[in-house]
Amino acid sequence: MHSTRRSGAMSVGLRSCAAALALLAAGPVLAQQAPMSAPNPAPMPAPMQAPAAMPAPAAMPAPMPMASGPVDRAKILTAPGVFGVFATFKVRPDYYRLASAERKGAAAEVVAVVDKHKDKVIVDAYLTRGLGASADYFLRVHAYDLAAAQRFMTDFKATRFGTFSDVSENLIGITKALNYITKQKSEALNTGLFAATYTDKAPRYAVMVPVKKSAEWWNIPEEQRLKEMESHTAPTLQYLVNVKRKLYHSTGIADTDFITYFEVEDVGAFNNLMIALAQVPENKYHTRWGSPTLVGTIQSVDDVVKTLSTAN
Amino acid sequence: MHSTRRSGAMSVGLRSCAAALALLAAGPVLAQQAPMSAPNPAPMPAPMQAPAAMPAPAAMPAPMPMASGPVDRAKILTAPGVFGVFATFKVRPDYYRLASAERKGAAAEVVAVVDKHKDKVIVDAYLTRGLGASADYFLRVHAYDLAAAQRFMTDFKATRFGTFSDVSENLIGITKALNYITKQKSEALNTGLFAATYTDKAPRYAVMVPVKKSAEWWNIPEEQRLKEMESHTAPTLQYLVNVKRKLYHSTGIADTDFITYFEVEDVGAFNNLMIALAQVPENKYHTRWGSPTLVGTIQSVDDVVKTLSTAN
Amino acid sequence: MHSTRRSGAMSVGLRSCAAALALLAAGPVLAQQAPMSAPNPAPMPAPMQAPAAMPAPAAMPAPMPMASGPVDRAKILTAPGVFGVFATFKVRPDYYRLASAERKGAAAEVVAVVDKHKDKVIVDAYLTRGLGASADYFLRVHAYDLAAAQRFMTDFKATRFGTFSDVSENLIGITKALNYITKQKSEALNTGLFAATYTDKAPRYAVMVPVKKSAEWWNIPEEQRLKEMESHTAPTLQYLVNVKRKLYHSTGIADTDFITYFEVEDVGAFNNLMIALAQVPENKYHTRWGSPTLVGTIQSVDDVVKTLSTAN
Amino acid sequence: MHSTRRSGAMSVGLRSCAAALALLAAGPVLAQQAPMSAPNPAPMPAPMQAPAAMPAPAAMPAPMPMASGPVDRAKILTAPGVFGVFATFKVRPDYYRLASAERKGAAAEVVAVVDKHKDKVIVDAYLTRGLGASADYFLRVHAYDLAAAQRFMTDFKATRFGTFSDVSENLIGITKALNYITKQKSEALNTGLFAATYTDKAPRYAVMVPVKKSAEWWNIPEEQRLKEMESHTAPTLQYLVNVKRKLYHSTGIADTDFITYFEVEDVGAFNNLMIALAQVPENKYHTRWGSPTLVGTIQSVDDVVKTLSTAN
Amino acid sequence: MHSTRRSGAMSVGLRSCAAALALLAAGPVLAQQAPMSAPNPAPMPAPMQAPAAMPAPAAMPAPMPMASGPVDRAKILTAPGVFGVFATFKVRPDYYRLASAERKGAAAEVVAVVDKHKDKVIVDAYLTRGLGASADYFLRVHAYDLAAAQRFMTDFKATRFGTFSDVSENLIGITKALNYITKQKSEALNTGLFAATYTDKAPRYAVMVPVKKSAEWWNIPEEQRLKEMESHTAPTLQYLVNVKRKLYHSTGIADTDFITYFEVEDVGAFNNLMIALAQVPENKYHTRWGSPTLVGTIQSVDDVVKTLSTAN
Repeated sequence: MHSTRRSGAMSVGLRSCAAALALLAAGPVLAQQAPMSAPNPAPMPAPMQAPAAMPAPAAMPAPMPMASGPVDRAKILTAPGVFGVFATFKVRPDYYRLASAERKGAAAEVVAVVDKHKDKVIVDAYLTRGLGASADYFLRVHAYDLAAAQRFMTDFKATRFGTFSDVSENLIGITKALNYITKQKSEALNTGLFAATYTDKAPRYAVMVPVKKSAEWWNIPEEQRLKEMESHTAPTLQYLVNVKRKLYHSTGIADTDFITYFEVEDVGAFNNLMIALAQVPENKYHTRWGSPTLVGTIQSVDDVVKTLSTAN
Repeated sequence: MHSTRRSGAMSVGLRSCAAALALLAAGPVLAQQAPMSAPNPAPMPAPMQAPAAMPAPAAMPAPMPMASGPVDRAKILTAPGVFGVFATFKVRPDYYRLASAERKGAAAEVVAVVDKHKDKVIVDAYLTRGLGASADYFLRVHAYDLAAAQRFMTDFKATRFGTFSDVSENLIGITKALNYITKQKSEALNTGLFAATYTDKAPRYAVMVPVKKSAEWWNIPEEQRLKEMESHTAPTLQYLVNVKRKLYHSTGIADTDFITYFEVEDVGAFNNLMIALAQVPENKYHTRWGSPTLVGTIQSVDDVVKTLSTAN
Repeated sequence: MHSTRRSGAMSVGLRSCAAALALLAAGPVLAQQAPMSAPNPAPMPAPMQAPAAMPAPAAMPAPMPMASGPVDRAKILTAPGVFGVFATFKVRPDYYRLASAERKGAAAEVVAVVDKHKDKVIVDAYLTRGLGASADYFLRVHAYDLAAAQRFMTDFKATRFGTFSDVSENLIGITKALNYITKQKSEALNTGLFAATYTDKAPRYAVMVPVKKSAEWWNIPEEQRLKEMESHTAPTLQYLVNVKRKLYHSTGIADTDFITYFEVEDVGAFNNLMIALAQVPENKYHTRWGSPTLVGTIQSVDDVVKTLSTAN
Repeated sequence: MHSTRRSGAMSVGLRSCAAALALLAAGPVLAQQAPMSAPNPAPMPAPMQAPAAMPAPAAMPAPMPMASGPVDRAKILTAPGVFGVFATFKVRPDYYRLASAERKGAAAEVVAVVDKHKDKVIVDAYLTRGLGASADYFLRVHAYDLAAAQRFMTDFKATRFGTFSDVSENLIGITKALNYITKQKSEALNTGLFAATYTDKAPRYAVMVPVKKSAEWWNIPEEQRLKEMESHTAPTLQYLVNVKRKLYHSTGIADTDFITYFEVEDVGAFNNLMIALAQVPENKYHTRWGSPTLVGTIQSVDDVVKTLSTAN
Repeated sequence: MHSTRRSGAMSVGLRSCAAALALLAAGPVLAQQAPMSAPNPAPMPAPMQAPAAMPAPAAMPAPMPMASGPVDRAKILTAPGVFGVFATFKVRPDYYRLASAERKGAAAEVVAVVDKHKDKVIVDAYLTRGLGASADYFLRVHAYDLAAAQRFMTDFKATRFGTFSDVSENLIGITKALNYITKQKSEALNTGLFAATYTDKAPRYAVMVPVKKSAEWWNIPEEQRLKEMESHTAPTLQYLVNVKRKLYHSTGIADTDFITYFEVEDVGAFNNLMIALAQVPENKYHTRWGSPTLVGTIQSVDDVVKTLSTAN
């Protein structure tokens, strides 16, 4: 009835073998987005990156590459100073009143737009229909230049599928270097973060959780905040083997402070991790934790659009 | 004008006699979903399962059965590590502008989708129209594999009836073994939970109540939290005879911590139980208790769709 | 332009003289719903029923009558254990794009549905258009069996008028015997409640106000809660002459704890009563008081539908 | 492109010279609604009416006049016991898909409805498009009988323009005599209120601000509440020269306690007044202050409908 | 696929060279809106203007110029007593069902409306699609007379593009002279504000952040509030080189106290600034900070409409 995420040949263009190799070559870095249709050649090291409150003092902005080719996936996914734009969408019901033939071409059109922008942005797609009320799917767009991300989003919205998609949440974040659990400030935990690596099966699920903290949190003296983050980090170490994490900073550029992004295969382990995070004092400073908590299956853009374009 | 829940022959396919027998064989376990159209041969033991805050340390994930036949209803309803996906829907008004003939086929199409997925998921349906503003009906889907639940939901949404249904809430939960009122930690109460059994008439009503707890709750030392849960559990013992309960854990995979699900025939008794639960200190830690509180009548999928497809 | 509430001959069928006499015969009980189109033969005693937090220990469920005739209005309006379902609706704008002739038949169709269910439910209607943003009208449905109320609501929604009505709030409540200001617990106030009776003109207005109380309220020791309810009740005695009240309990079966329902002719007096109720400590425990506060004119179902079916 | 508020000859019918004279004759009373298209013959005394929390003990209900002619504008705007119904509306986008000719007749139809009800209600209109997101316009309806206000509102909604208008807020209030800053309780301030009069140019702007106060406020002993209201009133005296105020009481008949209504020409002075009111302790007891704060230009009903009926 | 902000010749009419020169001539003032399509001849001094809580005592209202020509952009952007109306919009999906040819003319029609009002208002446009869920674009309108701003907004809504745009937020603000960090009250910081100037590249991004403060804030004694504002201002000095700011006061004329507006090229630096502002005690008094936080690219009106009028 709908194409599954593994069967789509179109998805190869988006998550190519080249990208997989690049990830492999990237060494001990965050490798959230191992290509789904390619074999997972080896467990990727997944250092835990704790939510950061202070701007990294010496974090240099990511040099915007002048290269004329496609964005280097491994690099952009590990560099600081990169923009991550998350947008969640619901397909409007009138989409399904279009003739089936018209909906059939939708995926190819979207894939073409992704391809058109491949020198400036990388795009990941997630199917959330059936797993959350606020969205049918969401996109995660990485770019060195925020305006480039907007140009992609604008072109995407101008596609047939895009015009029938209503955006329900849209958050901008920036990646930064670790700023609490660094080698300098918290050596033992930092070692722990890099000692463990993801060893579970290739994750099929992604979870996106916006996080906002209270004025009380931001007014805690920096040293105490470090202690709170250490309490936050300690119970997470045991989950490094089956949860991948990536963090985006959003204060003042979205109505959230952080976007936390996870990839997991073992959803139960993830639930346990989140309970552990609920049980530390740092949780008392949350004013937003979720809303939405969005669970999706990691799929190619092509598959997501195809699945959502199917109706009887 | 609309088919009642007892008269539908189609519903037998969904809640078969086989399932009823399986439930019977399941012994002293949670048997929330005794088939509605079959006689209730004997009172099912309904041990009270208290909201759990700690991940069950030794809870093994439910082995995902490789069996090729339909999901074993009794097993999946009592096993830990099972996903329960709740989705509440409103039928869009334009559905009733379709020709009556077109709406007539809707139920069979939905039933076929349920049947198609019967090796991976079981589906329960509830009619809430007239009893709550946020939904006309809701589905409860159990699966060992979350992706399988999503595939069912996606196929359901692609049916004619599905495309005219707007999802208003959609929560993922996981079942776990008891973690507070265990034989080890709280023997007397545990005995009480298993001493009493549901003896009322077959329940016609189900109530779904999401529960979220504050950071303060999660930061209470475990021992004190156990005491709070004992205070919570004690007044509930007297209601074991007329309220069935089932609990799902959702922290970090939905914007709630628990989904509590009840089946009752005596709605007044249930109201009294909920007042009793409001009167213990544990209630002070709720940040969400309901919203929605959704009361529905337990019906076959076929009947729910047929009732909601009727209009003059 | 639209039929007024007094001129409609159709309304007699719904609020018949028989019902009026029955109310009269009911003696010193709550008689909120004196028929509007019939003369009000004598002031109805209107004992003040204070919001109740404890389940009435000895309250027997209302025996579900097996009688084959229409529901006895006076009895069902005064018995404990009765379900009151409140549903507020907005008429969708596209209703007024139907041909005027099509809208003309709407009232008769709704009246027929009310009549069809008259052995199981009684239905009251209120026009709120122009007096509140959340609804154009609301229904109050009483039934001994909740499923019967749902069957009526489902049939109502299947009428032409129903399919063009969007439900904005829908609350279930149960009536109970007085539980705070009883003869045993608070004799003087109880006497006061039964000493005064409604003496104002037949009320044209109804007000529906949902009430939810905090966990702190429910955790107050019962004796102190009684004192709070006494403080709440004392200032209301003077308003018994011009405000009729009826209380429904909803904890756990709707996202509210109580539905308070009033009938008044003197809206100014009602405003003063509500200010008096705001000025007692019990008010500090409200987490919901209104939202919506819904003021409507008491009308026949026929008149409400006719008025809302009129457009130029 | 659209008719301006001063050029519309139709508006004379609504805000006639007679009304202007009546206002003039009304003496030292609240004269909020000086006709816009007539010259402002003399500065109107504008005594400050402070938000009142206690029902005026001796306030007699406004005698409902049996007169057969139009409502006396000056009288109804100054009498206690009068209902003020505020309704804010957004024009639905599909209105602009009607043929231009169809929209052209809209204003006359609405004016005719206002005229039809002129013996029972007076109607003021305000254009808010471009100045607030929640509404395009709002109506203020005064009536001695609440049902009469509803009948007007119902007829208005049945006009072509009304059927294309969605109500976004709808609040009922009642006027009362001053109850805090009276000659008896607070003589000096009371003198101050009556000493200053509005001397600015005829106000072009109206501001509607709902106000709700906490349970803590209502539980303050009356004497202390008087002191709080004195602190609230003192800084407002200097603004009597350029801000006109009128107060409506809504506790229990809408989800607000007060509707405060202002007319100003100097919007900057009004902003300063509101900052001054924010800086007194009484502000700490607000649970709603605005939401919406609605700024509109004072226009004739005719002009408001004409402006909103224009599209390219 | 869509015209970029630099390529549109039409935009010259809106942000002319004349305006650029005027800005240059304006000397050490806030120059937020350097024309995008013209070279930035020299770094504009950008004194930091801190959120102000007290009305400037001696601030004279901006003399409403009687001049017959276009509004002087440099003057109106730096004068106190000017109205700034912000309106955020979403384009309705049905816009994209119009024939492409019909959408093509939309931009010219909007530009003509801007031109028609150029003697009374200046209009700036921002594309937010893809960067925030609540809006596709927003307008910032400056006028000496609030009614003139409304007339523009009303005419804009009457354009084809306007009728297909739904307003999602609409806030009125007034500019005022600095009132905390003045030379008199806080000399050192005031000097700091004027010592640093914006030296980054011409900003491509604008951020609009509504700010509302608690009753507690407004009740702080003025001297202590000055200290809080000094703590707020100190960490911002280092960002004067890459963030331009402008402040509007809204208490009582919108549901916010301030509208803060920023222009930046370095979005990461802005994020760091906002984190710094989160870390001072003044942040504890915020009841609204964002909601929405709206990031847009600074574009000509023509380009914004053209981009949003494009669809496949």
